[in-house]
This record gives sequence, structure tokens and C-alpha cells, in this order.
Amino acid sequence: MKAGQLGEKKLVEMFVRNLFGSDMATIPAGLDDTAAVAHNGEELVLKTDVMFASTHFPAAMGFKAMGRKVAVANLSDIAAMGARPLALLMAFGVPPEMDAEDLEKVFFGINEACEEHRCPFVGGDTKKAKELTLAGMAVGACRKEELLLRSNAEVGDVVAVTGSIGNAACGMLILTKGLKLPAKLSGPLTDSFTRPVARIAEGRAIASTAPGSAGMDITDGLLYTASEISRASGVGMKLNSKKIPFTPEAKEFAKLQQHASPVRLLEYGEDYELVVCIRKNKFAKVKDAVEEAGGALAGIGEVIKEKRIYLDGEPVDTHGYDVILR
Amino acid sequence: MKAGQLGEKKLVEMFVRNLFGSDMATIPAGLDDTAAVAHNGEELVLKTDVMFASTHFPAAMGFKAMGRKVAVANLSDIAAMGARPLALLMAFGVPPEMDAEDLEKVFFGINEACEEHRCPFVGGDTKKAKELTLAGMAVGACRKEELLLRSNAEVGDVVAVTGSIGNAACGMLILTKGLKLPAKLSGPLTDSFTRPVARIAEGRAIASTAPGSAGMDITDGLLYTASEISRASGVGMKLNSKKIPFTPEAKEFAKLQQHASPVRLLEYGEDYELVVCIRKNKFAKVKDAVEEAGGALAGIGEVIKEKRIYLDGEPVDTHGYDVILR
Repeated sequence: MKAGQLGEKKLVEMFVRNLFGSDMATIPAGLDDTAAVAHNGEELVLKTDVMFASTHFPAAMGFKAMGRKVAVANLSDIAAMGARPLALLMAFGVPPEMDAEDLEKVFFGINEACEEHRCPFVGGDTKKAKELTLAGMAVGACRKEELLLRSNAEVGDVVAVTGSIGNAACGMLILTKGLKLPAKLSGPLTDSFTRPVARIAEGRAIASTAPGSAGMDITDGLLYTASEISRASGVGMKLNSKKIPFTPEAKEFAKLQQHASPVRLLEYGEDYELVVCIRKNKFAKVKDAVEEAGGALAGIGEVIKEKRIYLDGEPVDTHGYDVILR
Repeated sequence: MKAGQLGEKKLVEMFVRNLFGSDMATIPAGLDDTAAVAHNGEELVLKTDVMFASTHFPAAMGFKAMGRKVAVANLSDIAAMGARPLALLMAFGVPPEMDAEDLEKVFFGINEACEEHRCPFVGGDTKKAKELTLAGMAVGACRKEELLLRSNAEVGDVVAVTGSIGNAACGMLILTKGLKLPAKLSGPLTDSFTRPVARIAEGRAIASTAPGSAGMDITDGLLYTASEISRASGVGMKLNSKKIPFTPEAKEFAKLQQHASPVRLLEYGEDYELVVCIRKNKFAKVKDAVEEAGGALAGIGEVIKEKRIYLDGEPVDTHGYDVILR
């Protein structure tokens, strides 16, 4: 059998979760946005996310955006656990014929992300490789009871999402399919894809205000994220598309692409917003805390007992992205 | 300018050390075996070391050995700081046409290393790539005063090395040059190359018995390691080749390769032993502690004021390996 026929989840189930020390970790590999190990009264949350030029970066994406994206992808998982970032590392695979100035742009992108998210960059390995490779690793920390576990959702919780939805998916479609749109529209949309933000402040606000909430970041689409939280918690969700905070640009994009509604964008990822499930009686307080931290939080549905995802009353197929390695 | 013309040290100086947060770290990127950031009363030591199939693994090296090697390379740097390992992560780049069983062997190698070094494996990212890529990341912890900094060496210190020297270099030469040797000899030598060990117990024994000692692991040869510690500490060293703990196999190898002595092996790396500098009055106690931990420690020289490395009275050229990306 070829490795390419195995999905990442299959790999995690077959190998990664069986490796030494899973029982020594608070959260072993492959169960949540990050793993976690205890250290001196807190949990260290640990994440690695690697991207390869040939697979993960559209040709139209600049080098600075690549560096930024890998940094943010790693920091976003720290945010999704409710932790504060302690450090970011990056191992680089560099094709020898790559222009040194392009490599410098990659570093600028990483630096921009680290500065914005107040996360020190501390490492540091550079090797020769066949293609540009950026292997990020982020470390964060929080108290154990604050961890926003995927398995924390409870029936009756408010399902909520930070920020706004859809722009990054539109930006990805514009860049990968070469769609031609008015600059006024395509500018903000591609920006959202090339300059994503990790919701660190929002994650901390939620975790510290309502410990025991569930959380996961959106990298594979809102609906897939909702289904993953539901699966881990043994519950389902009723979502209301009218409450989903689509941006005006995403709505406009959907219209131009002849979709009556932007709902189809929920199947695309790259938003790096957080989907959280919060006890109903805490939601108002958490929303205030997130806004005080400079963010936004919108209730978009409710956790239900039946193990299905409904969108506007209709069951949703949330197959996700795990069919093949990508 | 092409990226391949920049050495890794140049890259670190130009970019990595200038990235955000260097001043927030106890040890920023590129200065020591690992970076370090404070967390709840201890230092977290953080390392990433990535290897690519096309560059770093001789064709004759098996898949299990590759997994083990990357795990050990990362753990060895934790050992070189005097820290205990908390967790290992690995991001995988997998060519889709790779045999799934070969990938399984990589996991077996990682598992073996984690089990032997009692380090939980906790992550966890697998992506499609042009060549097999193993990006390891290790996290460890110790008290700040225990850190075996490269800059800690003082004039009059005993220069010492753990374990034994030369086997891994011989093994590498056998595998990369296809040298034919009696199996009785080549077996143990290639084993040392394909199954290296990180000196975690030794590092902890040294750091806890003699805080303030200097240390670095040998990945680029003993002489280069000695010169790096010397440069960081603003000192030099007098080394005595007769005291270097060459194995009988390495001596035999040197004879068969028509070298009168195995000293030329000191220019090769891959031993993953630790070179340390210990206050003279502490050396006996530290040696006992290392032996109690199951290891060995041999004094091989002395730290001197003059900023040069002498081997048996002759100055040594320790250019090291930083000419090009590799």
C-alpha cells in the first residue's frame, strides 16, 4: 500500500497514537488541536504544522505570506486550546537555487506574525531540501481546567464563532482559480487568505472567563470543525446560517459567483477563526470578555443530543478533508 | 544571491536572531544547542532539527534508523543543555508513492528512541511532500542555573567527553563510501551510526552535580565542538589525543584505513556524545555521578586562556561544517 492512500487520521490511528508516552501526556497526539504535557502547575500545549511549497502554497502567494501563514497556522492551534503562546520555532528546508531575497521575505512574514501575536521566535534549523519547506512548532501554556478541549461540548451549549467567516475561503478561490473580480472586492478577500490572524486574545478571553468550554480552530471549514467538536463530545449541533457572521465581501463574492447565499463557503477552510461551545449562562459574559480583548463572538447555534449537524434545519454532510494526504 | 551560498550561521546572523522576541527568551535562536524560555520557575529548552531524505540519509540507511536518528538528534540537544526531556514532536513530509510499510518503520524508529530516552511522543503532522522529510522538535526543562551553556567554560576547567568517540564516524564512512570491512568490525561501527543515543542521563548528572559547567553535543566532530565552546566562552583548549576514549573498533578501523591513529575521525560528527567543561575541583564528583547514571566521562584536556585549540601541542584548524547549506 502506498503512503498517499492513507489519510492523516488513519496514520494517527495506526501509528502516532501508539507511540511511547501517550499515557504520560495530558493530551496525546492526534486527539485535539494540540497535544499537552504538564509542567510546573500548568499544561504546555505543543503543536507542529508543516507546509511544503509544492502542496500548500498557491503559486500566486508571495514568500512573505508563506512565512506568515505557517506561523499563524501553528499559533492558531495554541489559541484554539485557550493557551498563551510561549515560543515559536521553525525548521526550514531550502532549495539551494532559491533566491536569498525570497528567503528573507519568508523570515519577514514569520517576524510579522510573531510580533503581532507577541510570541517570541526562538529557533532555528536550516537545511538543504528539494522544495521550500516550513516546519513550524508552537509552544503555549495555560491551566489544565482552561484547556478548550474538543470533547468539552455539552447539550444546551451556545455554539459560537470568533471574528467573521468566508473571506479567506474566497481569497483562496481567487488565488487558486485565478478568478477575476473588482479590485475593491478581491483585495480584502485575498488579504484574508494571505494574512490570516490567530485568535490568541479571543482564546484566552474564552478560556479564562468560561473554563470547561469546547474549542477548535477552523482550518478545514466551519462545518467540518463543528462536526469534529460534535464527534469528540458525542453530541450534535443545530446551526443557523443567518447568524453566521459572513463579511459583506463574502456575501458579494457569493452573489457574483451565482450562489444565492455564501453558505457554500462553509466547506472551505483557512479562516483560522475559533468555533467554541459555551455554557448558555456564561455566554453573555464571555462575549463581553472577547469584545474587551478586541475581538468579536457570534452565537450561531446550539449543541443538541442527536449526533448530527443541522444547518437551517437540514442535516449536513461533513465529510471533511481526510481522504488523502495533502 | 542564491540561498545555497549562505551558510546556516550566516542565515542565523542575518535573520533568525533579529526576529521578534529574541530579548524575551533566556537563550535566543542560534546561540546554543537549544533556545530557552522561562516557564513557571524553570527554563524550557526548545529545539528543532529537520532532515531530508535527499540530503541527510545515506542510501544504505534503513527507514527505522532514519526515524530514530531524527528523534535522537533532537533529544541530544536537550541533553547538551542539561535538561530532562518533556516531549518530542515530529512533522512528516511523505511522498505519496512511498510504501506505507516503510513509513511504519520510520515510526518504529521514533518509538524506539522515545522509549529508550523516556520521552513522550506527542505530535503529529503529516503532509504530502516531494521527499521524505522528518522535522523533529524536542522540549525539555531544567533550572536556569543548570543550563550547560556553551559560554560557561572557564580557564582551568577540565574538558571532558561522555561515552566513546569515533564509531559513528567510521559507520558513516562505511555506509556512504561503501567500504568493505570484516563484518565483526563493520557491524558495531554502522550500528553506532544508525542507532545513536542521546546522553540525557549524563547531561542531567553533569548539570545537577556541577551547575555552571559548559556543554555541547558532538554533531559536527569533537574538534569543531571544542572550538564552538571556546569561541562562545572566549577561551581555548589543550586536548590530549591519548586521553580521548576511542573505541577499539575505531582504532582498528583507522589502522585498516592506513591512518596511524584514529585522530582524523575527530573531524567527523554523528557521535552525539557531550563535550563539557567542568571546574577542576568538581570533576571527580561529576565523573562519579555520570557513572552512577550508567554513563562514562573522560577528561581529555584543559581550558586555556589563549583562544586556540591545541591537540597534542599542535594548533588545530577547526573550520567546521558551515560552508554551505547541507
